[in-house]
Amino acid sequence: MEEKMTDKIVSMIDERRYTELREQADGMNPADLAEIFEELPIGYYAKLYRILPKELAAETFSLMEPELQKELIDSFTDKELSDVLSEMYVDDTVDMIEEMPAVVVKRILRASTAETRNEINELLRYPKNSAGTIMTTEYVRFRKNMTVAQALEHIRKVAIDKETVYTCYVTDEDRHLIGLVTAKKLLISPLDSPLEDIMEDNVISVLTTADREEVAQMFDKYGFIAIPVVDNETRLVGIVTFDDAIDVMQEETEEDFAKMAAVTPTGEPYIKTSAVRLWKARIPWLLILMISATFTGAIISSFEAKLAACVCLTAFIPMLMDTGGNAGSQSSVTIIRGLSLGEITFKDVFRVLFKEFSVSLMCGAVLSVVAFGKIILIDRMAFGNTAITPWIALVVSLTLFITVICSKLIGGALPILAKRMGFDPAVTASPIITTIVDAISLLVYFSVSTLILNI
Amino acid sequence: MEEKMTDKIVSMIDERRYTELREQADGMNPADLAEIFEELPIGYYAKLYRILPKELAAETFSLMEPELQKELIDSFTDKELSDVLSEMYVDDTVDMIEEMPAVVVKRILRASTAETRNEINELLRYPKNSAGTIMTTEYVRFRKNMTVAQALEHIRKVAIDKETVYTCYVTDEDRHLIGLVTAKKLLISPLDSPLEDIMEDNVISVLTTADREEVAQMFDKYGFIAIPVVDNETRLVGIVTFDDAIDVMQEETEEDFAKMAAVTPTGEPYIKTSAVRLWKARIPWLLILMISATFTGAIISSFEAKLAACVCLTAFIPMLMDTGGNAGSQSSVTIIRGLSLGEITFKDVFRVLFKEFSVSLMCGAVLSVVAFGKIILIDRMAFGNTAITPWIALVVSLTLFITVICSKLIGGALPILAKRMGFDPAVTASPIITTIVDAISLLVYFSVSTLILNI
Repeated sequence: MEEKMTDKIVSMIDERRYTELREQADGMNPADLAEIFEELPIGYYAKLYRILPKELAAETFSLMEPELQKELIDSFTDKELSDVLSEMYVDDTVDMIEEMPAVVVKRILRASTAETRNEINELLRYPKNSAGTIMTTEYVRFRKNMTVAQALEHIRKVAIDKETVYTCYVTDEDRHLIGLVTAKKLLISPLDSPLEDIMEDNVISVLTTADREEVAQMFDKYGFIAIPVVDNETRLVGIVTFDDAIDVMQEETEEDFAKMAAVTPTGEPYIKTSAVRLWKARIPWLLILMISATFTGAIISSFEAKLAACVCLTAFIPMLMDTGGNAGSQSSVTIIRGLSLGEITFKDVFRVLFKEFSVSLMCGAVLSVVAFGKIILIDRMAFGNTAITPWIALVVSLTLFITVICSKLIGGALPILAKRMGFDPAVTASPIITTIVDAISLLVYFSVSTLILNI
Repeated sequence: MEEKMTDKIVSMIDERRYTELREQADGMNPADLAEIFEELPIGYYAKLYRILPKELAAETFSLMEPELQKELIDSFTDKELSDVLSEMYVDDTVDMIEEMPAVVVKRILRASTAETRNEINELLRYPKNSAGTIMTTEYVRFRKNMTVAQALEHIRKVAIDKETVYTCYVTDEDRHLIGLVTAKKLLISPLDSPLEDIMEDNVISVLTTADREEVAQMFDKYGFIAIPVVDNETRLVGIVTFDDAIDVMQEETEEDFAKMAAVTPTGEPYIKTSAVRLWKARIPWLLILMISATFTGAIISSFEAKLAACVCLTAFIPMLMDTGGNAGSQSSVTIIRGLSLGEITFKDVFRVLFKEFSVSLMCGAVLSVVAFGKIILIDRMAFGNTAITPWIALVVSLTLFITVICSKLIGGALPILAKRMGFDPAVTASPIITTIVDAISLLVYFSVSTLILNI
């Protein structure tokens, strides 16, 4: 649908049907318009942009990908740049600035009003991934002695510049956060009530330095439209709105997925990422993991003589390694997710280990019985491979049992330990676990076979 | 913090300090209270519950885990059950019913008013995972000839029973959705304007049958507080609010994570899931994957004679299999995520394959050069293993090059094909890719070594 719309818009521009184009665009949602911009051929951006009404243009602009924003800024006059910046929310401007080259940042700061410039500089100072970096300073603030009527009048005056009017905050003369009033409450309360009487005074807030992922989880837990952000002295400095929290959740999930597949997160949609950039995100991990697999190779090398004596043992190596890897990944991915949702913390480490141990006993038992049966019935009897003795079947199934237990314990403990040591637990997902478990399963395999087969 | 609070509440109940307890609980957020309930010892639930003010009790109840809700319902009188049901939003009641045993469901339906019962039955009829199952029927609806003042008056009357008053809908006499008015717009418009003049008439809506994941993505894209749900004749039947969308996003992410680790999603937090339930979620996949690894074993078996002739080839098997698996997982996980965000669709399949091919050429080149150097410099020269000839190094690095290309192409194509065929692409993540790539890497390895080493 959008592609067809893009074609329609291109031909309207080509045929200079500007009035029609303006009417068409005026009814559209800025998020849809931003998508159309992404699909337009180069050279059309500025033409479509200049036709849009000022407010819609600015809203659309703030939803575009950084590269497109940069293109447009390059084509803007200083006046046009000031216009769009004055319409944008400061937090969106800061998001954009973080992605721009220095020369564009300077132009943006020059085109902003002194007040906006101060706010931008303020917001840029917060630590990476903190609540301060995702909050907006455009919220509605009341004094406690205002009446409902006065509050509604205040909203009427300032609403247009505020990111939300649905949750408003009550502060004292020193800007300390003392209460919260929702627009719903204002709409259903008598007009002459003082805010003090209707406000909620147990306000849940976060510090400017709080981790943005924690803030996002609070939206999931409480279902708020906005959460106030305060400094160390509980002075209100900004708010985070639910749409920013949804963005954070998506980004964090994105990063977890990438790290779990041993890829450095690029922060860009796949389709828009160049092959070279994808290569850069992937090759370091592939190299590290390849080099790590050397240990596994070394273990095999040191048992080469024994393998040569009983070559049919080799055929079971992939199955043992894979099953160990899969069993470990199941545990580690589950625990990583629990950690990132805050459901599992360091104090749960023994509970996790105990549970993984129980699960691994059950899984190990089933897998080793099935493997034993399969080796005897299919490999030995159906395929007639008499080199595969019941003793070999026993070695394989015993190895399987021990490997599954080790894998699940490692898969359960490693993410928790990684988090405890300050690493992102997501990097301990499948690829790392597989590499570790491979080595373990081979060591177990060769020890058990030495013991049972006397080779 | 919450655990200390739980202890405090337990001792207040033990010492019958009920007035103090009521005051303490009254200021608390229902989400925090629900967490405290989860931590209370059995036997305390009903005591704490009966002390809470009716509205807070119902809100807290709707946020509890199903098992706890069931415990409480069992302790409720019919009157208490009716009370809580009359305070709850219908969509929350439906969510709860879906988790309850039949006997409890019957009791719930008996305790509901006839009207609520009809709505519940209506909502239960929508297909699994559709917008219909997550929507609420408690929204604010206006006629277009109402004025702003009338609309505000209407909100004042009905607000208490509606899930949101911040986005209201305008319908004609047949309930067709014709417009949308936000509370912000109402608050800043002249009181005598007819809604017709201030409403937005390009309303973005979804069908009752739309996939709930798509609906959740629309919240991410548009930043709406609510999205209207319409039937096939564009009659308004409900709304989905942003907090339900956040829940859906979390649940879907949860499921993707589980499937990617070859675990059947349990829909429960890890800590609360019993070992037996975890085992049931994990063992079928481990069995399937173990049996699939038989093919890999069969490939090795059929080359046993050659491996015996050149035993040092065995040592590189784990490294080749792992690197292939990692390269494939990197691609498949990235594509799975792109598919689930709707960034990649079936029509992109050739673009994806071309990009993966380019990336795999670059990755394969680097890996094979590094592997060649490492085998010669470390395995042959540093460790003095003269059985490892430059020809063997060539076989290994050539295999690596081909395997990485195959793995990335399979990792790129498989999730897209899976989705096209109606499967969840998440199941084509690491474990499946690894199993497929293992077989391919061994086939390539043995073919290349036959060709180059003449064994």
